[in-house]
Amino acid sequence: MSTTARAVICLTLCLAACQVRGFYVPQEMNRTIQKLLRHYEISDEMRFNGNPVFSRTPLSGKIETKKLFLGAVLETYEKLLEHMIKQRPTPSPQTTGGKVLPNANNAIGAETGSKEDVRGKLNYILNKVQDLRRMRYQQQHELLKSLQTLKHIKMDSLEVQSKALWELSWLYEEASDLSTNAIEQRRRRRQARKTRPRLTGRKQTNNKTG
Amino acid sequence: MSTTARAVICLTLCLAACQVRGFYVPQEMNRTIQKLLRHYEISDEMRFNGNPVFSRTPLSGKIETKKLFLGAVLETYEKLLEHMIKQRPTPSPQTTGGKVLPNANNAIGAETGSKEDVRGKLNYILNKVQDLRRMRYQQQHELLKSLQTLKHIKMDSLEVQSKALWELSWLYEEASDLSTNAIEQRRRRRQARKTRPRLTGRKQTNNKTG
Repeated sequence: MSTTARAVICLTLCLAACQVRGFYVPQEMNRTIQKLLRHYEISDEMRFNGNPVFSRTPLSGKIETKKLFLGAVLETYEKLLEHMIKQRPTPSPQTTGGKVLPNANNAIGAETGSKEDVRGKLNYILNKVQDLRRMRYQQQHELLKSLQTLKHIKMDSLEVQSKALWELSWLYEEASDLSTNAIEQRRRRRQARKTRPRLTGRKQTNNKTG
Repeated sequence: MSTTARAVICLTLCLAACQVRGFYVPQEMNRTIQKLLRHYEISDEMRFNGNPVFSRTPLSGKIETKKLFLGAVLETYEKLLEHMIKQRPTPSPQTTGGKVLPNANNAIGAETGSKEDVRGKLNYILNKVQDLRRMRYQQQHELLKSLQTLKHIKMDSLEVQSKALWELSWLYEEASDLSTNAIEQRRRRRQARKTRPRLTGRKQTNNKTG
């Protein structure tokens, strides 16, 4: 069995398992990925060498952590797919009776197996990723933009240095306060669990004596 | 009144207000920041021109969002302070009776008002920021590292392109599933609030008929 065929079978099994869990990947998207994998072919040894592109570790955290990481993953896919599209040759316009077909790049419409077809399929996948990110991960996108801004502050500027020193007390306090509040909340929850039976016991005793 | 004096008074009032709220900035740190601001002096017009170095917008979000942003802010302070320390001239070793003082760079020990003093104070502030980040923001640091890794994937590599396509179905499903679950949870909570009085009503009716 060829490497590609094995890869396609593995992917199909994986997707079937996902569908049992009730996930939401459109059939057309699955099919398009399978077709693209025939074009972007690598050996099984390389594919399963234990170095995935996207780490799974942040996905074992809290829901907000997972959402932020997945938001960043979707943004990375957008950039990667745009890069892969740029690497493809620009399609020559397909004509029918002198008219240019408007959806020449569409994966669903293009089933010719040509090089242009790959470009169309990549565009289709890119649109799916963009739709999900824009519809469900906008908040995460805003936070990622704020984090990105921090990378570009002008460290040589006296204005930035002085303002940053000025802002430090407030931000340091916020950071201390936030982490201390989280610890305090956990402590109170533990305390509440411990004291709850005792209070109930007292109430019962009071009722008896009353 | 000079610009610096006004700035110091403003900062003192701000810090006093923070202490009423029960925040946690060591007195020595406050004093060191005030002394450094006399060195990194800018006009009031520049300081209060409405363009702070660090945006406050992400701090109005959920607790995990705030923690992640503040973790990134602390990391930025580490880099900025290290940069500011590098910009200072290296101190010549201070000696007493032929012995080199080990804490020549310490802000608390160095009160001479010299250029080396500024370096020592910056080092003291850097240590305080590092301590808070390492003790309370380690999880956020790990996530920020994972996000940073995403910026450096090799987009030209066939291995990366093929593996990313392969991993897309699973990650897309996770991303769809996570956001749908969050929406579903909110819907159920709303539903539970609506149905709770009705169920109580039915129970009471059953008890009456029973």
